[in-house]
Amino acid sequence: MTETIPHWLNKQADLSPDKTAIETSDGEELTFLQLRDKSRSLARKIAASGVRKGNHVALLAANSSDMAAAIHALSYLGAVAVLLNVRLSARELAYQLNDAEVSFLLYDEDHTELALSTVYQTDCPNFSSFQEIDEQTEATVDLREELGLDELFTIIYTSGTTGFPKGVEHTYGNHWWSAVSSALNLGLSRNDKWLASLPLFHVGGLSLLVKSVVYGMPIYLMKKFDIDLAHQAIISGNVTIVSVVTVMLERLIDKLDGGRYPDSFRCMLLGGGPAPEPLLKRAKIQEIPVFQTYGMTETSSQIVTLSPDYALSKLGSAGKPLVPAQLKIMLDGKPAPDGTVGEIVVKGPMVTKGYYQNDSATSKAFQDGWLATGDLGKLDEDGFLYVMDRRKDLIISGGENIYPAEIESVLAGLDGVKEAGVIGREDDQWGQVPVAFIVPSDADLTKEQVFRYCRERLAKFKVPKHVYFIAELPRNASNKLVRHKLVDLAGDGES
Amino acid sequence: MTETIPHWLNKQADLSPDKTAIETSDGEELTFLQLRDKSRSLARKIAASGVRKGNHVALLAANSSDMAAAIHALSYLGAVAVLLNVRLSARELAYQLNDAEVSFLLYDEDHTELALSTVYQTDCPNFSSFQEIDEQTEATVDLREELGLDELFTIIYTSGTTGFPKGVEHTYGNHWWSAVSSALNLGLSRNDKWLASLPLFHVGGLSLLVKSVVYGMPIYLMKKFDIDLAHQAIISGNVTIVSVVTVMLERLIDKLDGGRYPDSFRCMLLGGGPAPEPLLKRAKIQEIPVFQTYGMTETSSQIVTLSPDYALSKLGSAGKPLVPAQLKIMLDGKPAPDGTVGEIVVKGPMVTKGYYQNDSATSKAFQDGWLATGDLGKLDEDGFLYVMDRRKDLIISGGENIYPAEIESVLAGLDGVKEAGVIGREDDQWGQVPVAFIVPSDADLTKEQVFRYCRERLAKFKVPKHVYFIAELPRNASNKLVRHKLVDLAGDGES
Repeated sequence: MTETIPHWLNKQADLSPDKTAIETSDGEELTFLQLRDKSRSLARKIAASGVRKGNHVALLAANSSDMAAAIHALSYLGAVAVLLNVRLSARELAYQLNDAEVSFLLYDEDHTELALSTVYQTDCPNFSSFQEIDEQTEATVDLREELGLDELFTIIYTSGTTGFPKGVEHTYGNHWWSAVSSALNLGLSRNDKWLASLPLFHVGGLSLLVKSVVYGMPIYLMKKFDIDLAHQAIISGNVTIVSVVTVMLERLIDKLDGGRYPDSFRCMLLGGGPAPEPLLKRAKIQEIPVFQTYGMTETSSQIVTLSPDYALSKLGSAGKPLVPAQLKIMLDGKPAPDGTVGEIVVKGPMVTKGYYQNDSATSKAFQDGWLATGDLGKLDEDGFLYVMDRRKDLIISGGENIYPAEIESVLAGLDGVKEAGVIGREDDQWGQVPVAFIVPSDADLTKEQVFRYCRERLAKFKVPKHVYFIAELPRNASNKLVRHKLVDLAGDGES
Repeated sequence: MTETIPHWLNKQADLSPDKTAIETSDGEELTFLQLRDKSRSLARKIAASGVRKGNHVALLAANSSDMAAAIHALSYLGAVAVLLNVRLSARELAYQLNDAEVSFLLYDEDHTELALSTVYQTDCPNFSSFQEIDEQTEATVDLREELGLDELFTIIYTSGTTGFPKGVEHTYGNHWWSAVSSALNLGLSRNDKWLASLPLFHVGGLSLLVKSVVYGMPIYLMKKFDIDLAHQAIISGNVTIVSVVTVMLERLIDKLDGGRYPDSFRCMLLGGGPAPEPLLKRAKIQEIPVFQTYGMTETSSQIVTLSPDYALSKLGSAGKPLVPAQLKIMLDGKPAPDGTVGEIVVKGPMVTKGYYQNDSATSKAFQDGWLATGDLGKLDEDGFLYVMDRRKDLIISGGENIYPAEIESVLAGLDGVKEAGVIGREDDQWGQVPVAFIVPSDADLTKEQVFRYCRERLAKFKVPKHVYFIAELPRNASNKLVRHKLVDLAGDGES
């Protein structure tokens, strides 16, 4: 039975009208009542451009109260928000707009150029900046009073190991259950305020916007991660919970420099890939309450979390599945024995129902309601998850996922390249960075040509930091690229 | 889409195996792991008596860890628990057993006689005491690993204004949403322990057993409400939350006698009917964090709650609907204006889907997913609910509506009045007139004092026409005032 709930922002505007909903790093502050009014007004202005229930509207914007209000506005219209990564190239974004059948693109002024160069490569008929929309006259439309948990709310693209990016569908229910599951794990206090420095266009950031309206909790929204502001927000007691990826935690600990966070700071939620043990040990010494988590776009953010009770005894573990979630490790079609590495398979009401108009990817990923993540892990004898490796060959750089196959595919399109292999290399600042190995078909090919070609086609973080020319790629008996053998070749740093 | 979650007791046995799940007033203590093992063992023993998925099993027992384990055991079998009120007569119970098509009756030793005299009046083929079941050999059966939120879990009978009792169906989802909704309202702390003195066979008590496994929270389970033990549990800091009805709160405040509860005590959840204002004021003076609530069996316990932030400014209000819930006041088929009394109509995922095999009652109560509660209330201009009375107790005198609770609340404010109950009595001239039953705390209190006090505070038609002094008020197992039992006392006209 499909459950229906009152619109969550209306609800908090009723329960806690004067409580802060969003505080931004620019000093802006909106109560739940103000955020509701802003979002509803924006919804009517978007409707004036013809957007209706069921339409797909893409958002291309950095974190701001406008972006937050735009996401809520689309929910008031029953439109679907397609959340775009501002770091992608126009070509990458155009693919997503077409694939998601977007009929309207909304962007902030900082991304005007990117938006315009994107939209001209697509079938998307309509677009506006936030400012242009704001100048519209409100249309008279019925705004939604209820949210059906089975209804589609957002689509976020994620690249797979092969092929094109896939649009992960999230219903209101997926987001609702994610928020509730997190509260059952972390607890819930009236004094909570969550620092949101992850982008709202990623599921980790978006989940905080949803938590805000499900819990009635303020978030401190940063345009982007700023180490000084983040440190200040924690040390001053302005926030009680922070979501970070490893590179942020590293910098926060450096900044803390032997000091101590106040007791009111109760959770450093660490996601975005396996964390190095030395970092976790440093955090422990500093008495930082780190909750290691495991999750992905398909699970609407965290689905497995380690509580600080076990931070030392289970160091390096991502913990156990949240209350409504389940987990198993599969090997050759059977559950793997404890301690044996296999594929991480998960189930729960926060898990996506599938990929937008991509039945083959959906049916490949799901079996009997269980999602095969493609990630490798093992369970210890107490049932704690250790994530061994992200989706085969996935590179995580500063919290962004990079799939080697995508870069290899771009490189293969460059004249003078016979074939290419890409791997991640350890990096002090970003955790990992991509590096490329190219077998040239033209002896005159230069590395500068390769970099330029990539910069035109790929998000900056995906552009290989180093390029190696080699005679041939290491392949196995089936002629498949054996990426891990490239690792040895990347050691000397010659590029 | 039907959501599925892992069995909630298995989940907590995995997440918090060594944490206390149930502590009883007899000094017994069970961890989540122990409770799981006890419940699963009991499930296999019940299965040995032939109980299978979908069977209806009635439970007739006072609060105990056996009763708690029996409820969980039935969930492991996928059987439906029909929860019986031990205060009913065998004849009343027999009606419920037959109506609910119960095939197995389980009872504790204290209720053997009642159980046996009940079961012989029914078609129920099988019955056992807890002790007898415990001596069974475990059957080999598959126990459920998952719970489908749409599946029926419990049936609890409730008397309507007219006709036979109706079996309120609760799915796992109803109970789940109730627990989650309460947490979103009250917050959730790892240190919480909830005092459960309400009977598990009523939804208010049962909801605490479910919260325990959804939150991973210990409950302190009392066989029945004991003022000394309850006071001790709160004042010593052993519990952080207590569910009470007004009479319990009254006695707790008397016992507190000007003292203070520890800061760790964070919530006195007050349900079971409108609370008299003088009582709420006394609680406020004692700095007791009272959360007034409104709910019923059909809403799986509370659905509307007033937070302490508004305890004074909205004194007497039951608050606002919980996050996933909605509320409206209907009058003559239309939403009533603010301040106008009408029928309380509610909606939300914790609301029952209907009455067991009683389509006429179900279709009468529900319209478009909204439940007409039969209770009367009004909303103030800020949307806060004031419950005027349960509709069946409404007194209509000379065309004027009189709500007994209002008069009771006034009477409770008179020095020398311990507690009061008001009903309507047939009257030749006015149709009905209110009459009052008073339990004096002062032997010198006179009826003339009562009349004078009321005349000063109430419209003339609301002043009780008769006053009876009695030793105690008739109450049910939840300690709720049973007004219709006062009717018998009003017959002789002595006033």
